[in-house]
Amino acid sequence: MKKLNVGLVGTGRLGMMYADFLANRVPAANLAAVADLVPERAKSCAEKFDVPRWYVGHQDLNDDKGLDAVIVTATTVNHKEIVIDAARKGKPVFCEKPLSLNLADAREIKSVIREAGVFFQMGHMRRFDKGFAAAKREIEAGAIGSPCVFRGSSRDPYRPSLEYLAPESSGGQILDMAIHDIDIARWYMGEIKSVYAVGGILAYPEIEQVGDTDNVVMVLTFANGRLGEIDISRNGVYGYDIRAEVLGSGGAVQAGYLRDTPITLLTKAGVNHDVVPYFPERFADAYVNQLIDFLENLIHDKTPMITLDDGIAGLQVAVAATDSLHKNRIVQVADY
Amino acid sequence: MKKLNVGLVGTGRLGMMYADFLANRVPAANLAAVADLVPERAKSCAEKFDVPRWYVGHQDLNDDKGLDAVIVTATTVNHKEIVIDAARKGKPVFCEKPLSLNLADAREIKSVIREAGVFFQMGHMRRFDKGFAAAKREIEAGAIGSPCVFRGSSRDPYRPSLEYLAPESSGGQILDMAIHDIDIARWYMGEIKSVYAVGGILAYPEIEQVGDTDNVVMVLTFANGRLGEIDISRNGVYGYDIRAEVLGSGGAVQAGYLRDTPITLLTKAGVNHDVVPYFPERFADAYVNQLIDFLENLIHDKTPMITLDDGIAGLQVAVAATDSLHKNRIVQVADY
Amino acid sequence: MKKLNVGLVGTGRLGMMYADFLANRVPAANLAAVADLVPERAKSCAEKFDVPRWYVGHQDLNDDKGLDAVIVTATTVNHKEIVIDAARKGKPVFCEKPLSLNLADAREIKSVIREAGVFFQMGHMRRFDKGFAAAKREIEAGAIGSPCVFRGSSRDPYRPSLEYLAPESSGGQILDMAIHDIDIARWYMGEIKSVYAVGGILAYPEIEQVGDTDNVVMVLTFANGRLGEIDISRNGVYGYDIRAEVLGSGGAVQAGYLRDTPITLLTKAGVNHDVVPYFPERFADAYVNQLIDFLENLIHDKTPMITLDDGIAGLQVAVAATDSLHKNRIVQVADY
Amino acid sequence: MKKLNVGLVGTGRLGMMYADFLANRVPAANLAAVADLVPERAKSCAEKFDVPRWYVGHQDLNDDKGLDAVIVTATTVNHKEIVIDAARKGKPVFCEKPLSLNLADAREIKSVIREAGVFFQMGHMRRFDKGFAAAKREIEAGAIGSPCVFRGSSRDPYRPSLEYLAPESSGGQILDMAIHDIDIARWYMGEIKSVYAVGGILAYPEIEQVGDTDNVVMVLTFANGRLGEIDISRNGVYGYDIRAEVLGSGGAVQAGYLRDTPITLLTKAGVNHDVVPYFPERFADAYVNQLIDFLENLIHDKTPMITLDDGIAGLQVAVAATDSLHKNRIVQVADY
Repeated sequence: MKKLNVGLVGTGRLGMMYADFLANRVPAANLAAVADLVPERAKSCAEKFDVPRWYVGHQDLNDDKGLDAVIVTATTVNHKEIVIDAARKGKPVFCEKPLSLNLADAREIKSVIREAGVFFQMGHMRRFDKGFAAAKREIEAGAIGSPCVFRGSSRDPYRPSLEYLAPESSGGQILDMAIHDIDIARWYMGEIKSVYAVGGILAYPEIEQVGDTDNVVMVLTFANGRLGEIDISRNGVYGYDIRAEVLGSGGAVQAGYLRDTPITLLTKAGVNHDVVPYFPERFADAYVNQLIDFLENLIHDKTPMITLDDGIAGLQVAVAATDSLHKNRIVQVADY
Repeated sequence: MKKLNVGLVGTGRLGMMYADFLANRVPAANLAAVADLVPERAKSCAEKFDVPRWYVGHQDLNDDKGLDAVIVTATTVNHKEIVIDAARKGKPVFCEKPLSLNLADAREIKSVIREAGVFFQMGHMRRFDKGFAAAKREIEAGAIGSPCVFRGSSRDPYRPSLEYLAPESSGGQILDMAIHDIDIARWYMGEIKSVYAVGGILAYPEIEQVGDTDNVVMVLTFANGRLGEIDISRNGVYGYDIRAEVLGSGGAVQAGYLRDTPITLLTKAGVNHDVVPYFPERFADAYVNQLIDFLENLIHDKTPMITLDDGIAGLQVAVAATDSLHKNRIVQVADY
Repeated sequence: MKKLNVGLVGTGRLGMMYADFLANRVPAANLAAVADLVPERAKSCAEKFDVPRWYVGHQDLNDDKGLDAVIVTATTVNHKEIVIDAARKGKPVFCEKPLSLNLADAREIKSVIREAGVFFQMGHMRRFDKGFAAAKREIEAGAIGSPCVFRGSSRDPYRPSLEYLAPESSGGQILDMAIHDIDIARWYMGEIKSVYAVGGILAYPEIEQVGDTDNVVMVLTFANGRLGEIDISRNGVYGYDIRAEVLGSGGAVQAGYLRDTPITLLTKAGVNHDVVPYFPERFADAYVNQLIDFLENLIHDKTPMITLDDGIAGLQVAVAATDSLHKNRIVQVADY
Repeated sequence: MKKLNVGLVGTGRLGMMYADFLANRVPAANLAAVADLVPERAKSCAEKFDVPRWYVGHQDLNDDKGLDAVIVTATTVNHKEIVIDAARKGKPVFCEKPLSLNLADAREIKSVIREAGVFFQMGHMRRFDKGFAAAKREIEAGAIGSPCVFRGSSRDPYRPSLEYLAPESSGGQILDMAIHDIDIARWYMGEIKSVYAVGGILAYPEIEQVGDTDNVVMVLTFANGRLGEIDISRNGVYGYDIRAEVLGSGGAVQAGYLRDTPITLLTKAGVNHDVVPYFPERFADAYVNQLIDFLENLIHDKTPMITLDDGIAGLQVAVAATDSLHKNRIVQVADY
């Protein structure tokens, strides 16, 4: 089997998951180098997964002639610099969502990528989840007739640290969470034309310190006249609850929340079952599938399902929705 | 057991259901008279349920000295005239939702009811459904912490006749359908402050002829800062799908769609079960419970759970949402 | 509507439910008389449901010329005497399961019924349940191919009184509980040829005092070669759990346990829902449907779905299974 | 990380899955050699998973000094010869279920293993499944009180080839399928004392040619007085349906069938979802967990959860049940 040497930039929580997948579950990947701004993190990741080389910062990794591709799981504020550097050095790039924290950066990335002519694939693992993909197939196959209304719901099981939540680094709740629902909405329904978002601090009063929200609901209208709703929450305390539903003229398809085990406990307290705890349990296979797909596209020179333009278009909706939230008005996505 | 003699005005589809319940399943009711503008309908209803007296139009029924209460299931446009006439004649009144098609009528009803000093109970059967009531109890008991986000969904299994849909008689899709979700939202969450609704004709192009929509989604903000979403549809072709969910700071409660039978069929085509077909199957017990409650309140002089003010408040939100839909702007409920 | 005057013998727990249904939910029934060995019970039942006449014991009721039919919900040990007396007096009879506590009595009932030429309908309400009936329709329609294996499960939510459990009056756990599963097994699969039952006292040690079991499992073979399993338990402490499943050559159909409300509660403790608490909640509609069917058969001179022969055949299997349990051997139903 | 060099004997369908897991998902394993009686199979497996050495037959592999352990996934009839040869050559052994086709072979294996003093671990992957393990934890934690009744169900989605089914190689349906349910029954409930099994050819008449059954049901009694039922079928045509349930004095726990995706499709044809298709999808993680556990036990010198004695005890019940099936009588497990 042909293997590619890949380098991974960013070895935080998600980066460590990626390292594990690249080392153990993606047959075409040879994890040849890792990099992190914190030397100890890069080093310990390399040791844990038997990675031959590790670097501090992305530049030396991007310079590494032995690498066939670069995978970016660094914090979002650094995406632009890393991706642009990799592209200028001719490296094919896979970049985790969101592409960047603002549209100016996203558009700058695009112009450099186009100039450099390198391969780029945007990361949105939900499209590679067995469930979300099966729903897409049903919609495409006409099983629900013509799609009319989209409902997406993303609930995290607990509040991240306030440091993480600060909009300077996370981009705010919509960019951090709803970007996934927006990507799925675009995939299932078409382009989004306008959006109205309202939010609040309803579960964790301390979030006020960093100026973010813990719950947001929004209404979408699509360019084709279809309708949508998205709600996101930091207080899905019962588990990691990710749902999507499309109601069409001939039926509906739901991608419901996933149980962690098929165990049901029946006692005087009622009937009880569990919910998958968080994204590593929920989407591990999707991340692996996505990495397999990335390497396959690279090896066989195929266009990725999720392009840079998808990354920018989703970001544009998220930025517009964030602005709607702040200004309490209906906004047109095209104005951003 | 003390029995009250009740008169029923309006013997259409819902009126016939009420007649059946009053005749057979509400022990405290003695269905003593029915009335309808169409003589044959009144007569055949009386014959079917062994009702001693039948009238054409509401006035003679309201004049009937043998009646202890009047129940109004006539078409909404006639509610004002019937209720006001009954009130002036001293009759306690139960009136089906929606109270009227506009706020002026609703407020006129209120002033007459207050003047006449008669008992009035507003009909919203969902609050008497075992499921919706159980969810309310969980919320009240603090099982989900502090409520944050409401999601309501109402889907009818097929398109009613265009004649029925005409906004002159139905009040439009929001007044006809979402009035229920709005009532439940107010019950679970508190008063609604602002609303933004968007809709479209996405499943039944012929609806354009009467100027209504077949799908509407809306975002709500509550006076206490909480958030909400409602989606309503005429094309829930797979069954009558009525759901409500409240996400709180400590958990969530869902009142999911109801199956018609607990039968599961497992074949090569997959695993299959049914959905309750429509409102008579879904809410028969709720209607009966509501009528039992009405007579109980009357006999024991108790304040009803759903008052005239609830009827007006819900209508106000529905009227505001309809205006939002038509003008494509965020509206404040207090402005209506 | 043609109404029949019915008399009810036995006003215990189930008899009171029947009285309520006959008085309020069975349009063709006019509950004209009730009887019980305990005068206070007969009297208070008559008062509660406005029944014109009440008797002590069954004989005066069976003599009542104003009655068109007799419904027997007395304790099983008295079935034979009541049914035979009613039959000899020319009354059509409906009798609750089980027909009697032994086959000699059952066969004596049969010979008297045949001689008297009166109408007789056996009570097994599960066949009139929406769910069990829908499963039957699927099987008949060939939805699961040729039936291969039956699995039935009946779990009561708590232990009845020891007095109730005493085999002298209940017939033992199999006659009391599994008679229902046996009836459904025969209905779905065909006649039962042999049976092997094992049981134990596993949850309530005090049952030893009365010589009964609290859990029994049994294996069935049908005359057509098909296979079956039944398990019954007194300790379904989480609710009233009644299930049946048929696996066929082309699929399976399950009549699963029923939830009491469609409410799901999602908290850190997991996802929680309820189970229907006991038979009055689970089978109220089935009992009503069965009484409606009985009167309909009587009025229109139709053969009932569940005949006296069905009552005897089911009892024969239950008696055989009880013998298998006591003697710990495989038994042939035809030997009883 | 310490890695062990493992050799795999048998590269049929299951062997290929094991090779994949050992090569890609078990970090402590270095798949260093494979063997098969069919040279092409051994060779192509080695090529597919970059295995350095391949052999024809087990002897050369067992002789390979570079191997730290041998994993046996060969056809059952060859288990004895392979395991004994490996043990005599001092190799630790992991052996897939069933241990052998008869008890004489199993006991001979035991005496050689004991003599050679090598480590042995029996394969029963269900115990390593997240669901079955969670149910075990609930039972151990007392969540259902004292266990009373076990129900196990195993349904394959289609008939294997007649060649595979021939009892000479498969051991018959009970040894091939119910061995898993028996292992779980012993794990949850305790040792099995007696069994009565009945079976038939109800879905695939052609099975008569090889003298096997396609459906079997059995009743178990445990040494501690508890009760059990198992049903197995070759015609679970709707998917791979593996269930276990334990009813206790304080509740019940169910390990229900698993869906393949969390997708629900709602159309006029009803509500539809899928079932996991077969064992590779259902139990892939369990197989991986089991192999991880095996190497962990070997490295850290720990006693395996499933011992050789477990393998023999399960087999003894399966052999007894098969004899019960053939002779149509209740059998005592201790007699085998």
